[in-house]
Amino acid sequence: MSLKEEALQLHEKHRGKLEIRSKVPVKDAKDLSLAYSPGVAEPCKVIVNRPETVYDYTIKGNTVGVVSDGTAVLGLGNIGPEAALPVMEGKAILFKSFAGIDGIPICLDTTNVDKIVETVKILAPNFGGINLEDIAAPNCFEIEERLKAEVDIPVFHDDQHGTAIVTLAGLINALKLTGKSKDDIKVIVNGAGAAGTAIIKLMYHYGIKNIIMCDTKGSIYEGRPYRMNPLKEEVAKFTNPERKIGNLSEVIQGADVFIGVSAKGVLTKEMVQTMNSDPIIFAMANPEPEIMPEDAKDAGAAVIGTGRSDYPNQVNNVLAFPGIFRGALDVRATQINEEMKIAAVKAIAGLIQDDELSKDYIIPKPFDPNVAPTVAEAVAKAAIETGVAQKKIDPRIVFERTQQLATI
Amino acid sequence: MSLKEEALQLHEKHRGKLEIRSKVPVKDAKDLSLAYSPGVAEPCKVIVNRPETVYDYTIKGNTVGVVSDGTAVLGLGNIGPEAALPVMEGKAILFKSFAGIDGIPICLDTTNVDKIVETVKILAPNFGGINLEDIAAPNCFEIEERLKAEVDIPVFHDDQHGTAIVTLAGLINALKLTGKSKDDIKVIVNGAGAAGTAIIKLMYHYGIKNIIMCDTKGSIYEGRPYRMNPLKEEVAKFTNPERKIGNLSEVIQGADVFIGVSAKGVLTKEMVQTMNSDPIIFAMANPEPEIMPEDAKDAGAAVIGTGRSDYPNQVNNVLAFPGIFRGALDVRATQINEEMKIAAVKAIAGLIQDDELSKDYIIPKPFDPNVAPTVAEAVAKAAIETGVAQKKIDPRIVFERTQQLATI
Repeated sequence: MSLKEEALQLHEKHRGKLEIRSKVPVKDAKDLSLAYSPGVAEPCKVIVNRPETVYDYTIKGNTVGVVSDGTAVLGLGNIGPEAALPVMEGKAILFKSFAGIDGIPICLDTTNVDKIVETVKILAPNFGGINLEDIAAPNCFEIEERLKAEVDIPVFHDDQHGTAIVTLAGLINALKLTGKSKDDIKVIVNGAGAAGTAIIKLMYHYGIKNIIMCDTKGSIYEGRPYRMNPLKEEVAKFTNPERKIGNLSEVIQGADVFIGVSAKGVLTKEMVQTMNSDPIIFAMANPEPEIMPEDAKDAGAAVIGTGRSDYPNQVNNVLAFPGIFRGALDVRATQINEEMKIAAVKAIAGLIQDDELSKDYIIPKPFDPNVAPTVAEAVAKAAIETGVAQKKIDPRIVFERTQQLATI
Repeated sequence: MSLKEEALQLHEKHRGKLEIRSKVPVKDAKDLSLAYSPGVAEPCKVIVNRPETVYDYTIKGNTVGVVSDGTAVLGLGNIGPEAALPVMEGKAILFKSFAGIDGIPICLDTTNVDKIVETVKILAPNFGGINLEDIAAPNCFEIEERLKAEVDIPVFHDDQHGTAIVTLAGLINALKLTGKSKDDIKVIVNGAGAAGTAIIKLMYHYGIKNIIMCDTKGSIYEGRPYRMNPLKEEVAKFTNPERKIGNLSEVIQGADVFIGVSAKGVLTKEMVQTMNSDPIIFAMANPEPEIMPEDAKDAGAAVIGTGRSDYPNQVNNVLAFPGIFRGALDVRATQINEEMKIAAVKAIAGLIQDDELSKDYIIPKPFDPNVAPTVAEAVAKAAIETGVAQKKIDPRIVFERTQQLATI
């Protein structure tokens, strides 16, 4: 049986992948009187008087809404909310398995930005955090920005930031391995969508300044007279400092790093051969990368990462989002700020010791049980240090708790 | 430790009462490739092309949104969405324990009717049914009516219909026990809120025609010049056929049945003594009934029901909603119509055999394991017979399935 058939069968067998379970017994009248009427009135009354106790008496503090409008699902595009549900269920069970977080799939039957923002705001009381998922650009940016401003729980668009965090973690180790420094590398990011933009912003925040974003029309620079949009304009302001103008094959010359979040086969061997020595290639288009790892290697790439599980160095968001939300939830962070993201980056990169580091091992494996606990601890610590934690607990406890809650 | 303290502790111990669990293994890369990327694309692609398969490949068909705006929670009133969350979690675990349904608490941070309707419509793709809960009158009526018209899944306001169904089931058995007939009884319903209105409508649909609704100003009749509202106007059109005018103590004279969904202590012994012989009293105000059962008995009541678990004949919605939704979901009913409600009524009443019937046993016990399966079977059958079932299965299978899924 093929993987496709097996996957279909798995989904059909149980009619979906997750279920609700009670954490308390419901076996007799006494149980009912405690968990439901009349006993349930007690936590209600406490919460009315002290709203912050909703975190003590309800599921809110361990619950993340996995919110999508179904407009940019996997490589399938705008498939709508029903067809997106299997993906959101999948995300929810990853949250649970990797970090003990209760993810609730929330597929929205609207693609209107105002309605999405309003709906999520109306639902916010149920959640300790919001994971935005598979929402097409440019709507995803506005939705995230507005929600971050208007709700008091963390909002995190995983397709942007999860990808950016794992990519940068891998890049840090690749630089270490090749002896390159963030201060003097030239990076090409091919792809001007949500992931590309987020990767560039995070790299820049981390200290990488010589970055050029390319779209299908070539390099993006301030004042480019064609195919611009507000996002590209924003990125152009702080990237491409030498205002290089040209298509990918031109501007990639001399670059140290290629990061592809674009399309199958757009990077040729010839282009790789024009890069600086020991080029680093992250070809993350899925399922077919910008260049096949074998070809990149042939062309001299020193380190190669992809989005695929069947090659080394998979850039897999599951390395980031479970631990990030675990850390944020445990300290009741009001947001996931840049410092928390960078803390996650360093935690992921740091999981590979110097003597373990190799061209085939710059990114931890998805099922490394230390990943989520280490990320959660680092994120909790950064949240406390940057003043966005409403509850201060020893980050080491977050590590241990994540270990206990994970079931992988 | 008091029940109140114990209830608080229970809620604090696990931080809420429910959790998400994965139904599929997530232990290695193979599991991940089936439940998440890339395998998850397969059900997504099937659903895009054949939308009805969302019921085969996702949680939708077994999931009920437990939706509240927190405006009429228990006896606590308008306590808001966060404080309502313990109740919705409780409802969700009852759905699971009694009928294997995955209830998702959805507490809404708005009390605006338009916004509630729109939010629920936007969320509908995730759910096989909507259970409205603890929404204040009159908004609850408009919200339910509009949603019933605008979404293609069952919408059921439990505070109205669940209460009405269990009350009528109890009444049918009480009539049998006292030798009264639905065709010639006089019924007083005290309380003009959501539950009272729903009880009257269901009784009328069942064939009880001589009903008088009372509010705090006395009997309601067509053209009453004070304290009317659209609901009371509607009820007045088909009730109080003799246009009796007076307060409760006046119109109750000669009545066979008193149904209270009102307030503590409003029914006196003296009033009961003016009723017809073998009066039937359902005093369902909670936690303090309209008359204490001891007093009603002293005054000659033949059968007494309350909303309390510490007296016989508890009118408890848990007898209805799990089986009703189980039956509706299993045949993919597009609505819960009057015939399905009456089928539930008769199923609940019929669970007590004639030789078991007594004044202290007209309503099944909440933990009677036959209740939800019997109700589910009857509701599924009625749905098929009335043409609202999208999937026709043998109702007997629904019975067996409910038995297997329940964990009480």
